[in-house]
Amino acid sequence: MLNGEKSLQKPLRWGMIGGGRTGQVGYKHRTGALRDHTAYRLVCGAFDIDYERGMDFGLNLGVARERLYPDYKTLIAEEAKREDGVEVVTIATPNFTHYEITKACLEAGLHVICEKPLFFTIAECEEIAALADRKGLIVGVTYGFTGHPLVHQMAAMVKKGMLGEIRIVDLQYTHGFNAGDDSNASEAQRWRTNAQTSGPTFVLGDIGTHIHYLSEIVLPHLRITKLLCDRQSFIKTRAPLEDNAYVLSHYDNGAVGRLWVSSVNAGSMASQRYRFVGSKASVEWTDTQPNELIYEIQGQPPQILHHGMPYLEEESLRYERMGALHTEGLGDSWANIYLWIAQAIDAKNRDDEAFLKTHHYPGIEAGTEGVRWLEHCVRSADNGGVWVPYS
Amino acid sequence: MLNGEKSLQKPLRWGMIGGGRTGQVGYKHRTGALRDHTAYRLVCGAFDIDYERGMDFGLNLGVARERLYPDYKTLIAEEAKREDGVEVVTIATPNFTHYEITKACLEAGLHVICEKPLFFTIAECEEIAALADRKGLIVGVTYGFTGHPLVHQMAAMVKKGMLGEIRIVDLQYTHGFNAGDDSNASEAQRWRTNAQTSGPTFVLGDIGTHIHYLSEIVLPHLRITKLLCDRQSFIKTRAPLEDNAYVLSHYDNGAVGRLWVSSVNAGSMASQRYRFVGSKASVEWTDTQPNELIYEIQGQPPQILHHGMPYLEEESLRYERMGALHTEGLGDSWANIYLWIAQAIDAKNRDDEAFLKTHHYPGIEAGTEGVRWLEHCVRSADNGGVWVPYS
Amino acid sequence: MLNGEKSLQKPLRWGMIGGGRTGQVGYKHRTGALRDHTAYRLVCGAFDIDYERGMDFGLNLGVARERLYPDYKTLIAEEAKREDGVEVVTIATPNFTHYEITKACLEAGLHVICEKPLFFTIAECEEIAALADRKGLIVGVTYGFTGHPLVHQMAAMVKKGMLGEIRIVDLQYTHGFNAGDDSNASEAQRWRTNAQTSGPTFVLGDIGTHIHYLSEIVLPHLRITKLLCDRQSFIKTRAPLEDNAYVLSHYDNGAVGRLWVSSVNAGSMASQRYRFVGSKASVEWTDTQPNELIYEIQGQPPQILHHGMPYLEEESLRYERMGALHTEGLGDSWANIYLWIAQAIDAKNRDDEAFLKTHHYPGIEAGTEGVRWLEHCVRSADNGGVWVPYS
Amino acid sequence: MLNGEKSLQKPLRWGMIGGGRTGQVGYKHRTGALRDHTAYRLVCGAFDIDYERGMDFGLNLGVARERLYPDYKTLIAEEAKREDGVEVVTIATPNFTHYEITKACLEAGLHVICEKPLFFTIAECEEIAALADRKGLIVGVTYGFTGHPLVHQMAAMVKKGMLGEIRIVDLQYTHGFNAGDDSNASEAQRWRTNAQTSGPTFVLGDIGTHIHYLSEIVLPHLRITKLLCDRQSFIKTRAPLEDNAYVLSHYDNGAVGRLWVSSVNAGSMASQRYRFVGSKASVEWTDTQPNELIYEIQGQPPQILHHGMPYLEEESLRYERMGALHTEGLGDSWANIYLWIAQAIDAKNRDDEAFLKTHHYPGIEAGTEGVRWLEHCVRSADNGGVWVPYS
Repeated sequence: MLNGEKSLQKPLRWGMIGGGRTGQVGYKHRTGALRDHTAYRLVCGAFDIDYERGMDFGLNLGVARERLYPDYKTLIAEEAKREDGVEVVTIATPNFTHYEITKACLEAGLHVICEKPLFFTIAECEEIAALADRKGLIVGVTYGFTGHPLVHQMAAMVKKGMLGEIRIVDLQYTHGFNAGDDSNASEAQRWRTNAQTSGPTFVLGDIGTHIHYLSEIVLPHLRITKLLCDRQSFIKTRAPLEDNAYVLSHYDNGAVGRLWVSSVNAGSMASQRYRFVGSKASVEWTDTQPNELIYEIQGQPPQILHHGMPYLEEESLRYERMGALHTEGLGDSWANIYLWIAQAIDAKNRDDEAFLKTHHYPGIEAGTEGVRWLEHCVRSADNGGVWVPYS
Repeated sequence: MLNGEKSLQKPLRWGMIGGGRTGQVGYKHRTGALRDHTAYRLVCGAFDIDYERGMDFGLNLGVARERLYPDYKTLIAEEAKREDGVEVVTIATPNFTHYEITKACLEAGLHVICEKPLFFTIAECEEIAALADRKGLIVGVTYGFTGHPLVHQMAAMVKKGMLGEIRIVDLQYTHGFNAGDDSNASEAQRWRTNAQTSGPTFVLGDIGTHIHYLSEIVLPHLRITKLLCDRQSFIKTRAPLEDNAYVLSHYDNGAVGRLWVSSVNAGSMASQRYRFVGSKASVEWTDTQPNELIYEIQGQPPQILHHGMPYLEEESLRYERMGALHTEGLGDSWANIYLWIAQAIDAKNRDDEAFLKTHHYPGIEAGTEGVRWLEHCVRSADNGGVWVPYS
Repeated sequence: MLNGEKSLQKPLRWGMIGGGRTGQVGYKHRTGALRDHTAYRLVCGAFDIDYERGMDFGLNLGVARERLYPDYKTLIAEEAKREDGVEVVTIATPNFTHYEITKACLEAGLHVICEKPLFFTIAECEEIAALADRKGLIVGVTYGFTGHPLVHQMAAMVKKGMLGEIRIVDLQYTHGFNAGDDSNASEAQRWRTNAQTSGPTFVLGDIGTHIHYLSEIVLPHLRITKLLCDRQSFIKTRAPLEDNAYVLSHYDNGAVGRLWVSSVNAGSMASQRYRFVGSKASVEWTDTQPNELIYEIQGQPPQILHHGMPYLEEESLRYERMGALHTEGLGDSWANIYLWIAQAIDAKNRDDEAFLKTHHYPGIEAGTEGVRWLEHCVRSADNGGVWVPYS
Repeated sequence: MLNGEKSLQKPLRWGMIGGGRTGQVGYKHRTGALRDHTAYRLVCGAFDIDYERGMDFGLNLGVARERLYPDYKTLIAEEAKREDGVEVVTIATPNFTHYEITKACLEAGLHVICEKPLFFTIAECEEIAALADRKGLIVGVTYGFTGHPLVHQMAAMVKKGMLGEIRIVDLQYTHGFNAGDDSNASEAQRWRTNAQTSGPTFVLGDIGTHIHYLSEIVLPHLRITKLLCDRQSFIKTRAPLEDNAYVLSHYDNGAVGRLWVSSVNAGSMASQRYRFVGSKASVEWTDTQPNELIYEIQGQPPQILHHGMPYLEEESLRYERMGALHTEGLGDSWANIYLWIAQAIDAKNRDDEAFLKTHHYPGIEAGTEGVRWLEHCVRSADNGGVWVPYS
């Protein structure tokens, strides 16, 4: 159980690029990073494309005026001059800028925490991975839902064989907030539905990568062998970017899966749902009730496992923050994600490769796999929804 | 609201072939047919392949000894000799016998009510349809879940445009009762997993046809243009019959759909789930809580509609039996199905084609469409899960 | 598992007094009695205070014209003249008529099935009990919710000690259909809110007796030692009859309980909820999802037991009709109630007191206990909500 | 919507008394206070009765060694010597110490944030209130569940008349963690079940005060006129402190209420449930799914309101942190509570009585009312569960 005590010698000096007042995602990053004030301290930022607004915002967060910068290049340059300069930077800007900012940060010797989807192409991912490796730096990717303890309960149950052999993987992340057209779309919505700024996908990248990554945490031993993607643009102006998509998958152990992502699932507030079916039992989890896990053994009464309870696996309980009966929310999950990345950075700084070998955190490989999966989805969909081998 | 008052001049003289003591389905037919004793009276039967057992069973149901027969041929022959002979016969036998028994009954001038999946091939369906038409007889098909009033509420809401244009059709009927192998399978389970007795499919035919038919009731204006089916036999001895299958569909209005059927969804008691997503709103219904309907208008709070409430559409309320706050179950649904078929038979007997033109009941077309859909699924799956045009 | 096979040598000849076209309750009685046509046959009726309407109604139910009577007295007199005269009569009329009709029927040698609350006073109950005993007749009381198999699962679990010692009994039956005033009340509503026709209570008698009786089935070994009732008439014209009431109870083993009945719980569709808390575990059941039972062992994950599953107790499974995955509704419950009463009548007719000794059915004692409980509630409430000893 | 931007000129210098490593509650305080690092900074502490352990703990939280004290008296004395001394102190120690520590802090000119139940007697509350007033200091009370935005949605809906006149108030906070005896009880459990350390109540004070306070937020216009409390000690060693209690209430507008608190509700993970019933509609909220609110208008489909949605009232949306579809948990609620108290302290420091007049936060009056309510409950219960006038 976590209680805010430090796991690093001292907090990392942390800055943000993007994530200003006008978007929603920045606060999730700060909620995650600053939870206990023992992993990160916010020391600088280039929060906003509008410098004035970003300055005002940063001052309101308690950042020193002189460390509020007009853009990421200035941030990098000026912080490099300081003895107490920033050590790790979060990139919470539109997708099309991830690659260039990440590259610049790494070249300046800064660890990076980047929003998903990471980049546009596998080639970019591999180049950045090599660069990070060369520089001895961490690239974390904020798959913010995977910090919930019960996600790791599912993984532990699968690992212990409590489900039997995995047969069926059912993944869903849908909402209806884009059921209408984009005529009154927010800024955030506009860049997400434009291939120039969003990359080759809309919902597959924006929300699909979350559930694909979470499934990998639960099923680390399975590999997709082929997949088929059928994607639609119900609002025509979004084409070729999809606002709805189905993916069918085959896994190397004979399991099959399906995944549904949508932002036109009108009226739905159910969001994410995960179901992992084995030969003996299944587990099911949703992000709307992240504190409960349904465990169904064939022939027995379904059980509802509650977070924080002693009957859970250690792999779940160690990430617990609030305790049984006390709800954890998305902020708690982000706090775990940020903590795990901080621990990775700290280990990297200490050249502790042994730690890194077994330490779980969403890093460059996770980000790269997300981009790889998107490439396969797009290739399948754009060829008429055909099966494509996964490699 | 229904209260048992007659809608036919007098009850139909009804008999059963199959549906004896050792199976579960027979009681559902009797529950449906005999609900009010104003639509059907049970007058004869060939309930069991074991004549003694069937005789004992029939006597226990109150059928006269002399009208309990060793097999369907004797039933047809002997009843034909009586002035008060049977008028309509239910066929609740294994799939492979449906065609020959139906044909024999129709040729003997009897109306037929048959279990699904109706027959093995479209050719058989068409032959029987022509025969029934020639003889002026009804063939009803017991899609027993579609008598729930809220199914018709969904249809009425779609028809009134309350969802907007339909975009997404999400269908599911899964359970886990066959997650283990068939070494201790029941008789019913054994014939269902054998292609000789079950026909070309297992779960697609056994449970998939139910949800495909229900979706047609809700979306009578949509046509599938192509589909893709991926089916598996997780228990190898069942191959080529599937115990799990995915179907993706495209509709003529641009909508897309997916369907999941499984009998290896270990531990799941959730059974059927239907979600119809329109451009403005969605409806969702399950058969495990058939008395509630979730109605979700994008941007508004989800609403839970309850059966029997005055705010529902007339199309739903007229099939109500118990009233608000009082649960209806599957038996109430079967009672409606049987009533609708009785009304069709009565109209046919009276040559009331005008009534039949608008009267809703699961007839030969519904049964035929089920078989057609299965043929397309199998063709797609057996060609590697490819898209096949639907015709 | 029940499948409609007879448990009586031949069906009872059954008639109805009240329960005509304009009310809702009559159809529940017919649904229960006529379920399989092996326990009862409907042979006569005095369905309606409006003879013409009742005649038309009875004909529509298939009753012979000459056995449709203008009132209960004629029914009794005329049926007595027939060799095939009625054997058992259901009384589904307003409360204030129960006593006189029951008495008249018993005196004529007819078994009686009566709506709850049975009578107005304990004295009436005792007089009728003595009369029934003298005449060798059964008086059944239609507590229609207690036929659900999972009610008997709870009783079996308590009996086996699966909950430990019972500590807390939480009972609720509420709805909001009378949240508004009675200016547009239905006939049924009007007599229920008038002390002349309803007796000393409204919701306590109308719905509270149901949950009190169900709790007795689950906890046959407990006795209330004292209770306190606080009742309100939120719609003033209903006073002194209550539209909302709380009851606190102490039991002889040290357990405590509370009960809430209301018809002004605005908007609620949740209806009945039962929770029985023991020293080790609890069970919780609702009538809106009668097919599931929540079983919560302290320190373990809550379990959801589903009707019809092999892990249930025999006491539950033997009353099953539809089987696992197939919903049972209120009609199935009524069918069980009516069957149990038929079995009691049959045993009484055969003088089989041994059978009657262990046979569960809602009889005169259950009806009497309901009236006794109402008397105590009223006495407590009308003295300012004070504790009254229970005797 | 809150995003971490400051609402105070600069963060308050904050210290903790109690709340060390071995308990669970301390982390909730830190989660609340340190959420954004713009309201509070943790500068000192006397975290633990074991000085070594508390020292180690404080260092791990990043507190300077010289500001980690062996006890509260030293903390007060030493911090008073510093120019940058602590301004506000949280007291998270066993109940019996609240009064003396609060008094000492106030006398030293420190604002106080104290756990509930605040003190043992009304007299203590009044003395402390007078002292705080004299010194110009705030006493906040951590009713940590009332920071959830939907609590304030309920209040706004009641205020706007969306429920009509309030009739019924249904409050519940139960769990089963003390269903077994206390032979292996934790330290925290031990002092809670001892009247010397816990005060006159166990569950009434420990959890009942939470729900009583929350009901006051929703129903600020109602006053209890009388109540009745029936309390039990199912584990005998806890007597006279109760592990289960019922409270019935009458309000000055004619409404009635009931409340159930228990720590022997075996197996229950449902925790808190609130239902407010008006003449037109009801709202229902639970702390286990704090992001949803059920709104039921009589005669219309129940609606499920989701946190963060634009259709909510401004009174709810302004306390939102995560946004629609993204779960908030108990930590988010505590963050709001601590923020509101910080704003009160800041206003007090600025002598801004106008702000304080309308500013919502759990202060000394809320704490006092909790103690008053407990006194009435105990008086009723200890006199045999009788009605006592509320004053």
